[in-house]
Amino acid sequence: MSTPARQPRQERSRTTRRRLIDAAVECLGELGWSGTTVAVIAQRAGVSRGAAQHHFRTREDLVTAAVEYLGEVQVEQLRARAGDLPPGESRIEASVDMLLNLYTGPMFRAALHLWVAASTDESLRAVLAPLEARVGREAHRVALELLGVDETHPGVRELVQGTLDLARGLGLANLLTDDGRRRAKIVHQWAKVLSVSLPQVSGVTR
Amino acid sequence: MSTPARQPRQERSRTTRRRLIDAAVECLGELGWSGTTVAVIAQRAGVSRGAAQHHFRTREDLVTAAVEYLGEVQVEQLRARAGDLPPGESRIEASVDMLLNLYTGPMFRAALHLWVAASTDESLRAVLAPLEARVGREAHRVALELLGVDETHPGVRELVQGTLDLARGLGLANLLTDDGRRRAKIVHQWAKVLSVSLPQVSGVTR
Repeated sequence: MSTPARQPRQERSRTTRRRLIDAAVECLGELGWSGTTVAVIAQRAGVSRGAAQHHFRTREDLVTAAVEYLGEVQVEQLRARAGDLPPGESRIEASVDMLLNLYTGPMFRAALHLWVAASTDESLRAVLAPLEARVGREAHRVALELLGVDETHPGVRELVQGTLDLARGLGLANLLTDDGRRRAKIVHQWAKVLSVSLPQVSGVTR
Repeated sequence: MSTPARQPRQERSRTTRRRLIDAAVECLGELGWSGTTVAVIAQRAGVSRGAAQHHFRTREDLVTAAVEYLGEVQVEQLRARAGDLPPGESRIEASVDMLLNLYTGPMFRAALHLWVAASTDESLRAVLAPLEARVGREAHRVALELLGVDETHPGVRELVQGTLDLARGLGLANLLTDDGRRRAKIVHQWAKVLSVSLPQVSGVTR
């Protein structure tokens, strides 16, 4: 008899968790780390503080879950769009466009607040540093898939990593002003460079 | 009679100003924007609060001066080292190495605190956004000099801008952990790519 009742309860629990994570991302983007407390997040999520603490004991736990979730969402979105990429010549331009626009939205903004706060907060750094490595590896893997290259070829790994570091730098440049026009030109030129360089180092299918 | 007395007073004033700016950079890196008040900076600089406010009316004025100063110091340091760059083949690798290590120190860390704070603080954004543009243009100009390229050739501007955006992304990746080993490999590969791409678009002297 308990199974049918448990299902919706689990679902409710998942919904609550998800609402807390969404609220945490919003709070970080609007209030920064110093303003992002469990109480503020719970209120915004429409969840009691007790229920919030049932899911996440500390705000570090909550924001870690949020960053992990943000990373997963980004990777899923990219994978979903990878199927639409053209197979031939224009694959690199299309995927460079996707990659270099990856960190220009509210998710990156929220993560950036955490990164910067962690640079002066040991306990936050302790949870974020391993997470940064994990999320970074996932982004790298999906970038390889999008570009359609094989990183066992020397130089490919560094070019793909560099592309993601460039993307984060472009995210930073987009923080205070809309940098879209300048970014579009860099996307175009960087795609040209990779179109020449990647086949040289990896024999990419074109 | 007043001239000989005025000279040391001006010098004292310059020293005080400089000490306030240095203290502001330190405070930002250690305490973040929220902990960086004129009172805290003045105390660290060993200057009375009144004297600090004589030089900088608000903390926005003070950190703006600090960011401007940081930008100038970086550009001067690069220019000073530009003379030592080899003229031939290896110029690009040497200058890419300098450029991609530009944002890995305490200056970038301090500026990053401000950038992120400005993203949720209108009055700070109003002073930082034009400053960001100004400091960015200076960095761009010195990058052209280091690489020895002419941006009237199509594509050069975007590659140089992209190199600086990559440098900022690498600065971000160095925030929580020492990313030096990974960065060195990216520097090497990026230099290879630019060695191929820049002459193609600009006819750089090699």
